[in-house]
Amino acid sequence: MQNLENTVDRIRELIDNETEQQLSEELASYHSADIADIFQELRPEERFACFTKLDEEKAAEVIEYLTPQLQVEILGEIDEGLASRLISKLPHDEAADVLGDMEEDESQVYLDNLPEKFSSELRELLTYNDDTAGGIMNPLVLTVAANMTVKEALETIRIKAEKENMELYYVYVVDKHNHLLGVVSLRTLLTSPVNLSVADIMIKDIVKVHVDDYQGHIADVFMKYQFNALPVVDLYDHIKGIVTWDDVQDVVEEETTDEILTSSGIVTDLGDDDDDVLTGSLGHAIKARTPWLFITLIGEFIAVSITSRYDTTFSALPVIAAFMPLLAGLGGNIGTQSITLMVRGMSTGYVTLSSSWHYIWRETVTGISIGCIFGVLVALVTWNWQHNVELGIIVGLAMSLNMTIATMIGTCTPLILKKMKIDPAVASGPVIATTIDVIGLAIYLTLVTWYLISV
Amino acid sequence: MQNLENTVDRIRELIDNETEQQLSEELASYHSADIADIFQELRPEERFACFTKLDEEKAAEVIEYLTPQLQVEILGEIDEGLASRLISKLPHDEAADVLGDMEEDESQVYLDNLPEKFSSELRELLTYNDDTAGGIMNPLVLTVAANMTVKEALETIRIKAEKENMELYYVYVVDKHNHLLGVVSLRTLLTSPVNLSVADIMIKDIVKVHVDDYQGHIADVFMKYQFNALPVVDLYDHIKGIVTWDDVQDVVEEETTDEILTSSGIVTDLGDDDDDVLTGSLGHAIKARTPWLFITLIGEFIAVSITSRYDTTFSALPVIAAFMPLLAGLGGNIGTQSITLMVRGMSTGYVTLSSSWHYIWRETVTGISIGCIFGVLVALVTWNWQHNVELGIIVGLAMSLNMTIATMIGTCTPLILKKMKIDPAVASGPVIATTIDVIGLAIYLTLVTWYLISV
Repeated sequence: MQNLENTVDRIRELIDNETEQQLSEELASYHSADIADIFQELRPEERFACFTKLDEEKAAEVIEYLTPQLQVEILGEIDEGLASRLISKLPHDEAADVLGDMEEDESQVYLDNLPEKFSSELRELLTYNDDTAGGIMNPLVLTVAANMTVKEALETIRIKAEKENMELYYVYVVDKHNHLLGVVSLRTLLTSPVNLSVADIMIKDIVKVHVDDYQGHIADVFMKYQFNALPVVDLYDHIKGIVTWDDVQDVVEEETTDEILTSSGIVTDLGDDDDDVLTGSLGHAIKARTPWLFITLIGEFIAVSITSRYDTTFSALPVIAAFMPLLAGLGGNIGTQSITLMVRGMSTGYVTLSSSWHYIWRETVTGISIGCIFGVLVALVTWNWQHNVELGIIVGLAMSLNMTIATMIGTCTPLILKKMKIDPAVASGPVIATTIDVIGLAIYLTLVTWYLISV
Repeated sequence: MQNLENTVDRIRELIDNETEQQLSEELASYHSADIADIFQELRPEERFACFTKLDEEKAAEVIEYLTPQLQVEILGEIDEGLASRLISKLPHDEAADVLGDMEEDESQVYLDNLPEKFSSELRELLTYNDDTAGGIMNPLVLTVAANMTVKEALETIRIKAEKENMELYYVYVVDKHNHLLGVVSLRTLLTSPVNLSVADIMIKDIVKVHVDDYQGHIADVFMKYQFNALPVVDLYDHIKGIVTWDDVQDVVEEETTDEILTSSGIVTDLGDDDDDVLTGSLGHAIKARTPWLFITLIGEFIAVSITSRYDTTFSALPVIAAFMPLLAGLGGNIGTQSITLMVRGMSTGYVTLSSSWHYIWRETVTGISIGCIFGVLVALVTWNWQHNVELGIIVGLAMSLNMTIATMIGTCTPLILKKMKIDPAVASGPVIATTIDVIGLAIYLTLVTWYLISV
């Protein structure tokens, strides 16, 4: 598919002209992931018209690539029998996700319609919390017994792979009670003498995760060790499933979104339900956005109460007031740059507590340099514009100090929060911006007052 | 490894006490990825002390997990012969990355020291641009001939896997000129009748990327189709290598960092060199941070010139000036929230151009609701504090309007930029914040003026 927009236009045309045969052929020529992208752009009735043109195999694949919202939307619109058949064609973890996103009475209906074994496996998966290893793992895991020979193991793998649609990543070695003993790669199995015992060639020192481990932790483990798959065990070390990189990719995207939204002052973890700020209810969106705005309000009222003491200054030299947004704006911007660099540097691992002095020093020098450049610039412009050299010097000096201090606050606060074991993304953005506002105004107005007293 | 900080402390103690034997044993007990994490926290001389305690196999593994900076630092400090041996133990793509991060004369020395075949393969890899498929791919790719039987193919795989340290993802099918014809999974090979021809069971409709494709595009393809590996071909469809998810993971992290830094007004693509804002030269950092600050400066001067026309207002009612930071601060915050939601929504695929009206509507309602709540709050506080009900109403009304408009600007601008095919992350943050400042102040001061005229 070359261009999504053109493709969507062509598909729309085919729907409008009711050229059903051509629509079917066109859709069949795309990869399921492309069709999912196209669906995202279509209107609900157009989506439905397209979906009915897909054969069941492809329809199930498309479902897999859709966003949770669209999965629920489409399955809700089609015939219940067809929906059950499609769900039964999905990998276990995907099927559980789809059912988990539905209302409970709805998912119950599907569970009752599914084949006995599949439905009981899904019911078990649904008992795990969405945000845990249990919630994202696939319970179909390729295991062989430790006392098998390499030859027997290869034969077992062949049979299991044929019977179930199972990806071959690693082969996990278990005892007869399904306790995880070790792992062996397919490469090792294929290249080892066929009469060796699996126990002799397996790696015993396994990195594994627990069913109840939080998904953010699992993503960290994945990213750190760069495995293709991780085994998931229960409290008794029974193997329960595997987590693969595509499960984790979704988690990483979620975590990144949380990091980004949090640092712009949106509360991502209200804990009341699975609602999302962008797609959930309006009430949820408002609840997520007000807490930090409220704290900003308090901070800015402090700024107002400080500023209001300078009313005689404003009366005497009203232009002083006009420069306040300039100082606040630039201080806020450069401070935000520093916060962003630090928070991102910490989450990618470049900035560590032991290297923090290096970065504080570096940012301070950057802040002073940029502060001086902008200070001189602002002083010259102000002088020329207002024909007042003293005002130019005051505004320029305030600008330099403000930008330097903003950089330092923006750099140090995330580091201090991290040292105090508080997530730097949470408290940083809005609070630091307000602090910078208050300090910047205080510096500026103090300078102005000194000047007015001295003349 | 349970806790990084405690582990680092224990390692430091072992170094300080010069208990070399214990240090070796302690380090040997950790996974290479853990050792890389520990190294990140140590000082250079401590790192070096630890590194010399590792055996060569492990040392090469640790090098693989280190950040580029530390790779170059450590390889520069150890004996040249050892460094060459370690580089020769790395996977091709990692080795090329390490050499690519060095000064050219330095990497030349290593290339001359490496085994002939390896070094010529690396030289070819180094000709590709860092940011392209060629720059991140591994040239060791598992291929079989189309005219082989399944049995012959499995035998070939066994031999190749034994000879070279090759991960088994997919098996690519080529003709005798190495043109890519199809792909077959190990699962299919293992479960197919051994006398079938590979050409009969391969998938011919392959998703592939080109050596010169930009890495961001490759990450998108990966994330969309969720493959474990993608084949890389040249202009003539010869297979040149594979890209695997761990290569792409680094790319995704880089792209995310770029998105985050860009939206806070840091220029990530100065095009002059590979320098990084956080780790590159100070000059580079300043160059990356000033452009949008400069544009903010111009915007804020517009705010100043508008505000300065109200000097008679400030003289008459100086407290008016004190409320300006409050309005600018909250308008800026709620606007930033909306921008962040939209930009992130677009990069995760939830917000599309066809769904934009839905989100504009949604954000407008959110803006009006939050605007009213905060407007009433601010009005009440101001009234009580200044004992001036009219001032309370003006500030409250200005706050409501300001927050509503800020939300709408923050929502619409990224969508409009996207429609104009401009990266919404680039222009959004600082420019929108300044626009919101200017509009917010204009509304407020207009309301104040109307009031002053009417009394």
